[in-house]
Amino acid sequence: MRHLICGIDGYIGWSLALHLAKDGHEVYGVDNLSRRKNVEEVGSWSATPIPSMAERVRIARDIFGVEIGFFQGDLLDYPFIRDVVKNSKPDAIFHLGEQPSAPYSMISRENAVYTQENNVIGNLNLLFAMKEYANDSHLIKLGSMGEYGTPNIDIPEGFFEVEFRGKKEKLPFPKQPGSFYHLSKVHDTHNIMLACKLWGLRATDIMQGVVYGTRTKEIIDDGLLTRFDFDEVFGTALNRFCAEAVVGHPLTPYGRGKQTRGFLALVDSVQCLTLISENPPEKGEYRVFNQLDKLYSVNQLANIVHREGERLGLKIEIENIENPRVEKSEHYYKVDHKGLKRLGFKPTRPIIDEVRIMLEDLMRFRGRIAQKMDRIKPRVSWKEGMPRLEEQSTPNYVAWCEKA
Amino acid sequence: MRHLICGIDGYIGWSLALHLAKDGHEVYGVDNLSRRKNVEEVGSWSATPIPSMAERVRIARDIFGVEIGFFQGDLLDYPFIRDVVKNSKPDAIFHLGEQPSAPYSMISRENAVYTQENNVIGNLNLLFAMKEYANDSHLIKLGSMGEYGTPNIDIPEGFFEVEFRGKKEKLPFPKQPGSFYHLSKVHDTHNIMLACKLWGLRATDIMQGVVYGTRTKEIIDDGLLTRFDFDEVFGTALNRFCAEAVVGHPLTPYGRGKQTRGFLALVDSVQCLTLISENPPEKGEYRVFNQLDKLYSVNQLANIVHREGERLGLKIEIENIENPRVEKSEHYYKVDHKGLKRLGFKPTRPIIDEVRIMLEDLMRFRGRIAQKMDRIKPRVSWKEGMPRLEEQSTPNYVAWCEKA
Repeated sequence: MRHLICGIDGYIGWSLALHLAKDGHEVYGVDNLSRRKNVEEVGSWSATPIPSMAERVRIARDIFGVEIGFFQGDLLDYPFIRDVVKNSKPDAIFHLGEQPSAPYSMISRENAVYTQENNVIGNLNLLFAMKEYANDSHLIKLGSMGEYGTPNIDIPEGFFEVEFRGKKEKLPFPKQPGSFYHLSKVHDTHNIMLACKLWGLRATDIMQGVVYGTRTKEIIDDGLLTRFDFDEVFGTALNRFCAEAVVGHPLTPYGRGKQTRGFLALVDSVQCLTLISENPPEKGEYRVFNQLDKLYSVNQLANIVHREGERLGLKIEIENIENPRVEKSEHYYKVDHKGLKRLGFKPTRPIIDEVRIMLEDLMRFRGRIAQKMDRIKPRVSWKEGMPRLEEQSTPNYVAWCEKA
Repeated sequence: MRHLICGIDGYIGWSLALHLAKDGHEVYGVDNLSRRKNVEEVGSWSATPIPSMAERVRIARDIFGVEIGFFQGDLLDYPFIRDVVKNSKPDAIFHLGEQPSAPYSMISRENAVYTQENNVIGNLNLLFAMKEYANDSHLIKLGSMGEYGTPNIDIPEGFFEVEFRGKKEKLPFPKQPGSFYHLSKVHDTHNIMLACKLWGLRATDIMQGVVYGTRTKEIIDDGLLTRFDFDEVFGTALNRFCAEAVVGHPLTPYGRGKQTRGFLALVDSVQCLTLISENPPEKGEYRVFNQLDKLYSVNQLANIVHREGERLGLKIEIENIENPRVEKSEHYYKVDHKGLKRLGFKPTRPIIDEVRIMLEDLMRFRGRIAQKMDRIKPRVSWKEGMPRLEEQSTPNYVAWCEKA
């Protein structure tokens, strides 16, 4: 098959590109490299050193003999994405090309506006390009489990049947997200639903849980590594804990640590995305999958990192800190996720095994993490944003590394 | 009270400004004059001749002795709206300042993108300005009944209680709108809900039906007239029928004409907006009202115009034409709208009386309508957009006027 990956330079984008290319598919990718720029802007970097896109393409060619086509450009630039879609005529378009961080969207008005404009208009441009030049393609759009929020009832896969005043109706499940980033994904969801109805596009909207891991079957060489963010803005809770563990910093769950979310290994995210591309919906169909393996609370994650880290000889403490976010500290959370299993999805990587590999990988890059340890502590308040970067103190945390 | 009206140059904005100012309130308004520009862009104009904003302010001063403060600027220009909010410190902010046309948003990709960017980012900027400088103000946001679409169950006011797998929960009612414009309002709704939760803002989100009429109690002089659009892009079905009636053109309901919507007289919309400002929600509360009086199908509207027009001596035919929109031709439609009645709303203008006044007003401006009759026929297809303006034939329809 011929695949186009928007956001090929990202954490999942690059892992997916390697998998599909090695699997014999024709793979094209676009990226504006904004993830690198935005992580740099908040004063951090990927714990894993990642080569430039030109080098990535070359290394993939050298190791696997595959040819990944890369086009640098922005989804906000319609002639650019239109021409890529028109010329590549993909069977599937994986849209992973959005600003992916909730905290980043909460830093300031500028960041909220940037996130919604970048994500919503970029996605609209892609829909119009498909309408004009790839009406039969399958849009595989990365949404987020965070779109749903944490309602006090079960979360179905996109739709639910309700009875209201004696009449039954299948309705989209209402979305109650908790950040301007998650809202941008909700806006996308609504826009995609209409595009399918109006123009007969086919789309799969993925409500994905939090993805963890540093490895896929294809990441067999340091030159093939995908990025790994650990700062407070772009790092997930689990990534932050792993980074803290390897430099001897206490693990810092936010609040009481009972917030619960769905999780999935990187290799299994790639497995799901591939399965979805092999099983497209009908023309005009808007389909939703909740893409996750298991649920964990923040404290459970900290405990897993604590246990696996100590097995590797690390000395680890856990210190819950004030939660900068506005979210329920304890809540009901039950999520349907049978759709992908019906397509054949089998989770392959238990979180415990994967955390051990993550810690082993990160121990090799301890120096890179230590240099940016001042970027782990939360500064972005959901109520107040983040003080301007220049106003922040930047103590030297390299000491953490030496202690460790 | 001190009021700020975003979109003061619009159909409802100007009518509301006159009402509040005459009522003794301090009234400020902002507008970027985009409505005039956008109507001109699609080759039309307001049937009622409307003075410039500077003249409007002067005429209101001459007739009522009121001082309306007008600031020309754009909600996308954050420093502009921030300073207006900061300096005017309004008790209520009426946000009527959005691109208001569904067909306009469906003309092309550019128009869809413009509509969503203009509306969503403008509204975000206003929310951030309130967060910083008017945290206690009351946001009165104009949404649309079109946000709900036409589900096969009753439409509650914003929220409904459902039982799902044995658990009960109050949820936002799911939105299934039918155009990129209506989607922009849905995106706003989601953004406002979060702003109330995060920052303790108070907001009323109005799901308004279609508004009709040329008059309010304050519009007692031609210099005070509000705009009246009748072209296919900015005119409502009822406005188009009234315009067609006065120039002797057959009335042209789209499709089978059984599409049903909620309606409300202009003077009653102003009454509701005033009532809402007098009864603000609690801090942190996000409140929804469905703002409408009665339901009518498109055919019922055509029949009312037919009957009232013939009473005024007009000769009228009805010719249903192909529906350019993607919408259900026949559907269930039952809408809760008790909230505003509980605040004291009493509808004062039956549609039949109002249509007679509209027709009488428009007969005086028949010449202006006749000059733009080629702009009534639908060209904007929900599936295909609109051919570029220069590719359209523009026959001279002034003949319609002479025949009439």
